[in-house]
Amino acid sequence: MVQKKVITLTKPIIEEAISNLYCNNFPARLCIADLGCSSGPNTFFAVLEIVATVDKVLKKMGHQLPEIQVFLNDLLGNDFNTIFKSLPKFQKDLEKTTGAGAESCFVTGVPGSFYGRLFPSESLHFIHSSYSLHWLSQVPQGLESNKGNIYMASSSPPCVLKAYYEQFQSDFSLFLRCRSAELQEGGSMVLTFLGRRSEDPSSKECCYIWELLAVALNDMVAEGLIDEEKMDSFNIPNYTPSPTEVKCEVGKEGSFTINRLEVSQVNWNAYHGEFCPSDAHKDGGYNVAKLVRAVSEPLLVSHFGDGIIEVVFSRYQRIVADRMSRETTEFVNVTVSMTKRG
Amino acid sequence: MVQKKVITLTKPIIEEAISNLYCNNFPARLCIADLGCSSGPNTFFAVLEIVATVDKVLKKMGHQLPEIQVFLNDLLGNDFNTIFKSLPKFQKDLEKTTGAGAESCFVTGVPGSFYGRLFPSESLHFIHSSYSLHWLSQVPQGLESNKGNIYMASSSPPCVLKAYYEQFQSDFSLFLRCRSAELQEGGSMVLTFLGRRSEDPSSKECCYIWELLAVALNDMVAEGLIDEEKMDSFNIPNYTPSPTEVKCEVGKEGSFTINRLEVSQVNWNAYHGEFCPSDAHKDGGYNVAKLVRAVSEPLLVSHFGDGIIEVVFSRYQRIVADRMSRETTEFVNVTVSMTKRG
Repeated sequence: MVQKKVITLTKPIIEEAISNLYCNNFPARLCIADLGCSSGPNTFFAVLEIVATVDKVLKKMGHQLPEIQVFLNDLLGNDFNTIFKSLPKFQKDLEKTTGAGAESCFVTGVPGSFYGRLFPSESLHFIHSSYSLHWLSQVPQGLESNKGNIYMASSSPPCVLKAYYEQFQSDFSLFLRCRSAELQEGGSMVLTFLGRRSEDPSSKECCYIWELLAVALNDMVAEGLIDEEKMDSFNIPNYTPSPTEVKCEVGKEGSFTINRLEVSQVNWNAYHGEFCPSDAHKDGGYNVAKLVRAVSEPLLVSHFGDGIIEVVFSRYQRIVADRMSRETTEFVNVTVSMTKRG
Repeated sequence: MVQKKVITLTKPIIEEAISNLYCNNFPARLCIADLGCSSGPNTFFAVLEIVATVDKVLKKMGHQLPEIQVFLNDLLGNDFNTIFKSLPKFQKDLEKTTGAGAESCFVTGVPGSFYGRLFPSESLHFIHSSYSLHWLSQVPQGLESNKGNIYMASSSPPCVLKAYYEQFQSDFSLFLRCRSAELQEGGSMVLTFLGRRSEDPSSKECCYIWELLAVALNDMVAEGLIDEEKMDSFNIPNYTPSPTEVKCEVGKEGSFTINRLEVSQVNWNAYHGEFCPSDAHKDGGYNVAKLVRAVSEPLLVSHFGDGIIEVVFSRYQRIVADRMSRETTEFVNVTVSMTKRG
């Protein structure tokens, strides 16, 4: 639900990027990639929004929807079978939205890390990625002194912040090099990071969600349920950049022109201020714990084993619900739209 | 193992097709599709053979391997997750065979039926399909009189043979139309059907494997283990064409020139006359029953339920072993190589 809201928020930016694409050239067949597509209901939601946007832009120009090849990418272990099984539903939704038949949108799955080449040279026109690029390729080296924390925090020593930042720089510049090779000239990218407004990487706006998970884990260390050394060596491989940091890497890499760089926010509880289809959705603590569990459970299980998971997340849910009742809790999104230079 | 042998047998035809491709034009990026790729060890075996052949052809011409995009296709329900998990092994094998790194061969999965469009127009250079195209899009209509049989048989009435043939004609011509739209001019296809030499569609060379399964099922009907009506309404959606029938459909559709049309055969037991890695492989009945079970179990389960499966295949194995000990049992393969006309 949070991811859907983010995609909806960034729709005007996607629309502008696609309009620019069709000003520069007019590909008879449009090749689109969604990187870090995951395998839930958001996967085809993003694709549908993008294809509907292409349709809207072209209808304004008096053109029909061209043939579109959509490449859905995520890691090797992603559940592509589930994505593919919901393809018929996507095709029906697409027909309802655009009037286009199944034979105008060809969906393929591309397994692999986006911190490496995924596509042949100059084979794509548009690349989208939402809420994936804040995942680093690995936990940075040199976090031994980040004791009691699981991410950057106000109590993290400077060397920890530096290690995280350097990992972000090397990962994101590799990402840009790969995508630049894969995009045609004039092709464009819209990327949304979970990020921050502040230049302080340990700012609460981006670190709080993990800080509260650290609270739950540290409580369990205090009670002897988790080994302290285990806790001290666990770190989340994320980096939530500021707009300036994103701009800086794009500038250094050099193949892209930034068209837009925007910051937005969504409440931790995506149902905040909206109609709730069920009582469960009103429970912000539950929603946030579910969201964070979905992305962090595999990391926690591989580090701590699966024995602690239920306890960690039931505590986390309580902690999160308490904080949400007392303060405004929002995710900050950094969205960048750029075009490959000639 | 049978499928691997068939791919090895057809290698010279694949090599010729790829050489022709590089005489006609010289794609900087080669787009290859394998249709009906399945999800076992044969999936990447076929791709590796094809890419190794491209490498061999180009090295002869003094060129490097170009960037290759490989599209692996099978039905929506195919286990693409398993394919993708063995991608790293494929990339290692590829490097061993051709010296090419992971960044020269990009693998994608394409879910859907090949009796429909799978790719954008003129987006492919080479299409391969082995041991898949004898599967029809559906069980033909009008097989009510095919009692006691589960496929075409010498005792099938003429209307049954006609219904099967018409389904083959309509399916294969649809296949050709779709592929013709998807291939670039000068692009080529190598297709291998499980087929027959004879013009008689109920010929033993293609029907015997299913006839023996019908023997097992009929025995179980006689013993009251299977309902007779259930048995009478079960039919396998295959068609094993003759070279003439293949040629005739290609001619009628009109967009392809046939370069080669060949017939080969492999023993039902692919280990026949070869070194056996284990005793199990020496048991032809076991090997054939395993092969037939892999392709027919889902059909049998959805028609008869899963209660009978073990019994059917243990009986089938015994029947097959007995026949194999007394006669030569071979699969006949029809391979056609063709080029899209200008």
